[in-house]
Amino acid sequence: MIKIAVDAMGGDFAPRAIVEGAWRAAREDGINVVLVGDRETVELYLARLGKTPPPTLEVEHAPEVVGMDEPAITPIRKKRRSSIAIAAELVRDGKAQAMVSAGNTGAVMIAAKLVLGTIPGVDRPALAAILPNAHGRTVLLDVGANVEVKLSHLREFAVMGHFYAQEMLGTEKPRIGLLSIGEEASKGTEFTRQVFRALETTGLNFIGNVEGRDVFEGTADVVVCDGFVGNVLLKAAESVAGLLAAMLREEMEKGIVSRLGGLLARGAFRRLRQRTDYREYGGAPLLGVAGGCFIAHGRSGARAIQTAIHRALEFSSLGLHEKIAENVARLHSEEARILKAGAGGGS
Amino acid sequence: MIKIAVDAMGGDFAPRAIVEGAWRAAREDGINVVLVGDRETVELYLARLGKTPPPTLEVEHAPEVVGMDEPAITPIRKKRRSSIAIAAELVRDGKAQAMVSAGNTGAVMIAAKLVLGTIPGVDRPALAAILPNAHGRTVLLDVGANVEVKLSHLREFAVMGHFYAQEMLGTEKPRIGLLSIGEEASKGTEFTRQVFRALETTGLNFIGNVEGRDVFEGTADVVVCDGFVGNVLLKAAESVAGLLAAMLREEMEKGIVSRLGGLLARGAFRRLRQRTDYREYGGAPLLGVAGGCFIAHGRSGARAIQTAIHRALEFSSLGLHEKIAENVARLHSEEARILKAGAGGGS
Repeated sequence: MIKIAVDAMGGDFAPRAIVEGAWRAAREDGINVVLVGDRETVELYLARLGKTPPPTLEVEHAPEVVGMDEPAITPIRKKRRSSIAIAAELVRDGKAQAMVSAGNTGAVMIAAKLVLGTIPGVDRPALAAILPNAHGRTVLLDVGANVEVKLSHLREFAVMGHFYAQEMLGTEKPRIGLLSIGEEASKGTEFTRQVFRALETTGLNFIGNVEGRDVFEGTADVVVCDGFVGNVLLKAAESVAGLLAAMLREEMEKGIVSRLGGLLARGAFRRLRQRTDYREYGGAPLLGVAGGCFIAHGRSGARAIQTAIHRALEFSSLGLHEKIAENVARLHSEEARILKAGAGGGS
Repeated sequence: MIKIAVDAMGGDFAPRAIVEGAWRAAREDGINVVLVGDRETVELYLARLGKTPPPTLEVEHAPEVVGMDEPAITPIRKKRRSSIAIAAELVRDGKAQAMVSAGNTGAVMIAAKLVLGTIPGVDRPALAAILPNAHGRTVLLDVGANVEVKLSHLREFAVMGHFYAQEMLGTEKPRIGLLSIGEEASKGTEFTRQVFRALETTGLNFIGNVEGRDVFEGTADVVVCDGFVGNVLLKAAESVAGLLAAMLREEMEKGIVSRLGGLLARGAFRRLRQRTDYREYGGAPLLGVAGGCFIAHGRSGARAIQTAIHRALEFSSLGLHEKIAENVARLHSEEARILKAGAGGGS
């Protein structure tokens, strides 16, 4: 039986929206959920939702809360009884298979990494976002777990992205692209040029450099980058979508005909929102930790949390860990062999 | 009299679209334009547009063309008679005040930098994009001229962005933000943290770190970053806009009511396109070179080129160079004094 631990206290609309999302996942979808947070508060919000909580929903008491602006190390150092720390411990102890949090992203990542540990061979877990593109979806990683990375980390990201895309996108040989600023191998920074050569030797379907536009044009199935540029790209894309929607609304208000048109087309707008809304994507998994960890958007409402719980359930049943562990180990041993042979990075 | 040199041979739709854009700027707007390219070809395309070219339009022969995939150094080393090299020489020799090219971006930047030279005190020119935000416009720089930068370069970018925003946005004290992944001074990479402290001592209106979303939310007037992340952000944003438009069209086809709505609202869509289309923004200036240099989008059509020529004309009449030169020099001398005093980077 798979159980999902949900951090009831993290996120801009916590605990209300989180409790409601968990309640819905438990009630409507029959998923086993543990809400982790201050018991009294959580039960208060649960009581507002109905007489008796669904039998698939439990509450685990966690008296402390990590604030959105507290240092990432807080759940490990200062607040070991926080909802984040306790959710991670439930996964570590096998009482839950995955955790979901919309709280302090840095704190969740550190807690997941240190409490759960990483998959054997993985040095750096990576946050993977699934984004819509012209033909389907693109996996972008890392989007914020690692602001400074080494070459070997980007190789790990490529392997993790490969297996995640295989499962999530159903593509047998996902096309792996390296985010850079020009397609030729010679483009980019000194570092990305080294990574380019290193990715050529992974045995994955590496298609070379891709640019910012390729993420949304669907040129690659997996786009690999460091967490700094990935985070910037993700947040910029999200806000472009918001800006365009606001501008279009504004323009539609500018005349009776446009306004009527907007009214008639509102079904199309709703469908577009569903296709692009981060709430439908349900958060990003932290790949590479030994256990499921989903980071939901800070602005998550109940619907987004419910979706994230679904994704966490799906993720836990995939068995990605073994594949990732095997292949990262293979890469590292090849790398060691190449280095030993003095052949450098290949190409 | 201000004259604009236009590279007739660069861009995805060159020479046809470029010649037409230049012809329109000369004919409809009375701007003095020199079309630089293979004389026979350019005159052939001009002949198709009307009997006699407008008197404000000249042609300067350049027998060579730099291909989109050729190394950036080509116009300096191998093709000194290329349209890019000759356009830059016209500006250097005072025969034109600014150049416009939709060609090989790297080649244009190198040619502008080496042929025109930089403004005294400026070490690295930066490509500055003007992007729409929720309240107006944001200047983002660098968007691709410098993939690897030092701390002092980002200080220069901040100064150049400040004066450019003052003129272009009409803001007296432009808010300068440093692109990072978290607002607190402690967030980002080791490098961005150092830059944060260095920007605090510039005397500019530095508002601290901003995130990818802030570029389009209008939190800052000027966003400073290295050319790698700026280029990724710019291209991703552009493709998100394209993707959303395509998705919306698709959704609107899904029913007679939506389709009718889309038809009625087409005025609103057209206005939105105008507000967001890069063609209306007319290319990005390379700030910091001693002379005007505008890089138009590779996909520029005639309309985009016409707008870019307008922008180049405006830019040339601003007198930005003196302000930038003065202030960059001031920064560098302060920096030297601080370093001498052993006080480090401040804060």
